[in-house]
Amino acid sequence: MTYCVGMQLRRGLVFMSDTRTNAGVDNISTFRKMHSWEAPGERSIVLLTAGNLGTTQAVVSHIEERMKAPEDRSLSILDAPSMFQIARIFANTLKEVIGEHGPEAQRPDGAFNATLVLGGRIKGNPPRLFMIYPEGNFIEASDDTPFFQIGETKYGRPILVRAYDPEMSFEAAVKLLLVSFDSTIKANLSVGPPIDVKFISQVESEPDVHFRIAAADPYFREISLGWGDALKEALDRLPDFRCGEGPQ
Amino acid sequence: MTYCVGMQLRRGLVFMSDTRTNAGVDNISTFRKMHSWEAPGERSIVLLTAGNLGTTQAVVSHIEERMKAPEDRSLSILDAPSMFQIARIFANTLKEVIGEHGPEAQRPDGAFNATLVLGGRIKGNPPRLFMIYPEGNFIEASDDTPFFQIGETKYGRPILVRAYDPEMSFEAAVKLLLVSFDSTIKANLSVGPPIDVKFISQVESEPDVHFRIAAADPYFREISLGWGDALKEALDRLPDFRCGEGPQ
Repeated sequence: MTYCVGMQLRRGLVFMSDTRTNAGVDNISTFRKMHSWEAPGERSIVLLTAGNLGTTQAVVSHIEERMKAPEDRSLSILDAPSMFQIARIFANTLKEVIGEHGPEAQRPDGAFNATLVLGGRIKGNPPRLFMIYPEGNFIEASDDTPFFQIGETKYGRPILVRAYDPEMSFEAAVKLLLVSFDSTIKANLSVGPPIDVKFISQVESEPDVHFRIAAADPYFREISLGWGDALKEALDRLPDFRCGEGPQ
Repeated sequence: MTYCVGMQLRRGLVFMSDTRTNAGVDNISTFRKMHSWEAPGERSIVLLTAGNLGTTQAVVSHIEERMKAPEDRSLSILDAPSMFQIARIFANTLKEVIGEHGPEAQRPDGAFNATLVLGGRIKGNPPRLFMIYPEGNFIEASDDTPFFQIGETKYGRPILVRAYDPEMSFEAAVKLLLVSFDSTIKANLSVGPPIDVKFISQVESEPDVHFRIAAADPYFREISLGWGDALKEALDRLPDFRCGEGPQ
């Protein structure tokens, strides 16, 4: 399994992904699920992947081969005129890769399926964020749906729904996302650190921020331990049910 | 879908269940998923059900018919000598009902599957809590695994894992469970109020407590609204990520 989130803020886009892959509980590996491409000062593109690792690696390889082949310039994500066109390139590539396994492969429960979160910025345009489905269609984030989760999404969703704020800083968003990731990691063996983080600022002159958080990282441990206590305190401050006074 | 939790505390057993059933998003009904049987002063039994409604209703009907038939006394849950034997009766009944649909029905993804949480107390013995699988086997709660969830379990699990305390009062447990249910209800249309609650005390002389919480219940609304604010405050109290000082 996997857990990845792409989130749209007023200040830019934040991405977070785990690195654990598994084929059964006794076959666990570490693979990067965050991929990025950059033409410094001109465009910055981030891809998060969930699903069949063969599929997602093939998508990335196809995309990179086309960037290098002059005759395929029209399909290069470094030449596409808009994030929408880049999303189309990824969507079509994903659909083709899955389709190689036959017409049945695109079914919602297909073994070769994968789902992508794509975000980025092209100079002169605001950042945009998309979710791409195995069928090759995709949707864009909006003020009503400002973040996309892929993989093992449920454990970490309630805190995102409750605490997301479009005005939050990158630093606050990393904290929120780490809490969401920590809840997921604690519940599901197939999601695990290290965690990749990327920030693409709304301000074009600001460079992208990109780093990796290890399991032993002091800040991650502080959040992981502190959140348990903070949750208990939060619960303590709510009034207990009053037996006898409540509904009967 | 469904969401039910059975939880073991030092002071007794707490049960909570939603009441929404659906066969598609346009076919939603309200059904009780908590069933209870009592021989006042002697035994008290609670069943929570998740899965195919036809299966779970058939299990309950079989159990109740046997209670009324004198020749089936050996299979009556009101005559069984222990909670373990009662769990066996439910487990065998569940397996039989599912098995009527053929040998394939018992597969983990079978359409007629159902899962049960069973708890109760027989005079002179401590309360016991079980989870019963569609294959007819079952497990018992312990200090290490003191609660069982069935149905849509993921959204509401992180808060239970973090805040469960075996010493908590019934009133505090209801608060914790309502937060867990509220997170699930907010995330999944197929889980919904009213919510059934039951408490079987460790103290045999204390009567069972049983009530239903409606969507408009003032305490439920207070928890639902208050929890969002409490979560945000808890998150605010954790330190923000320090960009530049952290891992690079």
